[in-house]
Amino acid sequence: METTMTSLPPRSQPAEEYERRIRKLVDSLRRRKLDGAVITEGVSRLYYTGFESSAGTLLVDAAEGLVFIVDFRYILMARKAMPFARCVLQKSGAPSCVKHHTRKWRTAGYEARMSVAAFDRLKAQLGHIESWTAVDDAISSQRSIKSKAEQAILRRAIAANDKLYAKVLGQIRPGMTEWEARGLFRRIADEVGQGESFDTIVCAGANGAECHHDPDLTPIPKRGPVLMDFGVLVDHYCSDMTRCISFGKPSPLYRKVYDIVLEANRKAIAKLRPGMTGEEVDAIARKHIKKAGYGDAFGHSLGHSVGMEIHEGPNFSPKEERVIKPGMVITVEPGIYLPGRLGVRIEDVVLVTRNGCECLTQAPRELTVL
Amino acid sequence: METTMTSLPPRSQPAEEYERRIRKLVDSLRRRKLDGAVITEGVSRLYYTGFESSAGTLLVDAAEGLVFIVDFRYILMARKAMPFARCVLQKSGAPSCVKHHTRKWRTAGYEARMSVAAFDRLKAQLGHIESWTAVDDAISSQRSIKSKAEQAILRRAIAANDKLYAKVLGQIRPGMTEWEARGLFRRIADEVGQGESFDTIVCAGANGAECHHDPDLTPIPKRGPVLMDFGVLVDHYCSDMTRCISFGKPSPLYRKVYDIVLEANRKAIAKLRPGMTGEEVDAIARKHIKKAGYGDAFGHSLGHSVGMEIHEGPNFSPKEERVIKPGMVITVEPGIYLPGRLGVRIEDVVLVTRNGCECLTQAPRELTVL
Repeated sequence: METTMTSLPPRSQPAEEYERRIRKLVDSLRRRKLDGAVITEGVSRLYYTGFESSAGTLLVDAAEGLVFIVDFRYILMARKAMPFARCVLQKSGAPSCVKHHTRKWRTAGYEARMSVAAFDRLKAQLGHIESWTAVDDAISSQRSIKSKAEQAILRRAIAANDKLYAKVLGQIRPGMTEWEARGLFRRIADEVGQGESFDTIVCAGANGAECHHDPDLTPIPKRGPVLMDFGVLVDHYCSDMTRCISFGKPSPLYRKVYDIVLEANRKAIAKLRPGMTGEEVDAIARKHIKKAGYGDAFGHSLGHSVGMEIHEGPNFSPKEERVIKPGMVITVEPGIYLPGRLGVRIEDVVLVTRNGCECLTQAPRELTVL
Repeated sequence: METTMTSLPPRSQPAEEYERRIRKLVDSLRRRKLDGAVITEGVSRLYYTGFESSAGTLLVDAAEGLVFIVDFRYILMARKAMPFARCVLQKSGAPSCVKHHTRKWRTAGYEARMSVAAFDRLKAQLGHIESWTAVDDAISSQRSIKSKAEQAILRRAIAANDKLYAKVLGQIRPGMTEWEARGLFRRIADEVGQGESFDTIVCAGANGAECHHDPDLTPIPKRGPVLMDFGVLVDHYCSDMTRCISFGKPSPLYRKVYDIVLEANRKAIAKLRPGMTGEEVDAIARKHIKKAGYGDAFGHSLGHSVGMEIHEGPNFSPKEERVIKPGMVITVEPGIYLPGRLGVRIEDVVLVTRNGCECLTQAPRELTVL
């Protein structure tokens, strides 16, 4: 198992998985009476096709299926990777293929994630489209419910992250700089997965209060805490975990704050139920921290969905009105930050189930003292 | 020197460098009669402040200077990093600070790189702004001329990339998979710089014809070519190089194609002059390849500018009307791709000077036979 996880390039899913995803999107286009959608964002192209590229336009025709239009640099690979789509070469300098392949459309979906400049170009190019509708919500809500195949990959990504953490615990030492510790995470993330899912955060001592502190030359203390926030990529899916450890006996204040954060994490995981809004889940942890007297020191949201992107929706946050549903994979990461003194965050990833949730992160949440 | 390049976190420039950059932007806002600009894109925030974050809004007030608005996660770091800006905490759930700090504006610049969704939110929030003007061209043209400080960093990034290549040449072996060779690049890029500037491309044998081939389990051949496209990040700046090597004696066809590409690269570097358009520079290499009978096999542009982003403008491309100027840093990367047979690309980075250009890449361009 260990050797198969090491040094294997990211794998795609079987074609049926992408066909299912496309069918769902097509259903939602039909419900909105759209003739098709122009998919321009890299992560969406990857989600619907399994093909990764820095360029390309995916046309989802509600009647005629998929057309993938891409330039010279990607066309050979695209044809190999997508038996379920027609792959068309966009010749440099030639008139837009997108126009040709959407000529029967009158109503089209687009991604409002695309840049203003790109959308302006698209509208100018496709003057025959009479109305444009943003379909980001349809895509995002589809992506928020992870299929069985996606859940399986996320489990592997999270297991790899547990392994990364265990390996780092065996190698991190006082005197090492935060930057060196970050290097340790990066190297091991390449061994247990396919690299980091985001830039690892390592905060020595009071730097933890900076929440998203950039690793610098601060040494890991001989006596004192370290906050680490890290994730591994596996087959295009992200994991995410935050753990705090202490070299030597923690101070009474640190221990107290740690226990409050840990209890906030536990409570949220124990009490969250599908049907709650993201705001209601956030409130479980927030109330606990507020009651303990640290409300102002928990200045961020309780969590975010995780999938092909490290930050997806819905969130557990004071402003999240969307409802939590089975199949969602979301972080639970309460924190308390006291500037100049300390920062504690404990982050797990949970899979929402029919009755509550399953915590996918296995690494112990209790304070590790080294 | 070697040890200082290894394991140091990215450094910012002295405050004066950012103040100069901001002054130039303010001048250009004034020329356009804009009261200020709302800078929303991460790379632009980094360019004007040296501060890296996944969130935040930089308000450039043409009369009153800089305001940086950011959430709880970044505020402490932002205040430390930006003595030249007013850093304001955007409280979660509180009314937008952006509105308050732009209340005197009537005309505003924005980045059309921002998403349609974000711009719609911004316009709704700042109803008092009477007219919005995209300022991407001003920012991009400012960024295209690298300051002396930027040139110095780019030289270091490119020197680090030369070193990366030399180290890889000493370690790459037939039998290793493309994916393992990519891992080699990644590890060394962390040693000589701060990681890759983009995902390394390694193509064994005929995979080179795929141009942007994703490294897979194809083994490096005992006899045959390997194409490698890679770059190192140093202090937020990118380097970029492509080299082809051959294990064992190359085939006559490979040698022939290699020499054509090499000559196209040399000619472009020898003949490019400030004052030419990007199209004219592209044509130097393209004509050479066409004359040799491989015009259709060179399906991409000759080059792109490099800086904080791996792909910046202007380009050397058949459609580039912008004029090349001293201080621009641009790749020269002709290629020939014969599907199923071979692919050759030779890429250097040049600094445009008053009379021509200086090739910053030092790694030999002649075919290396191992």
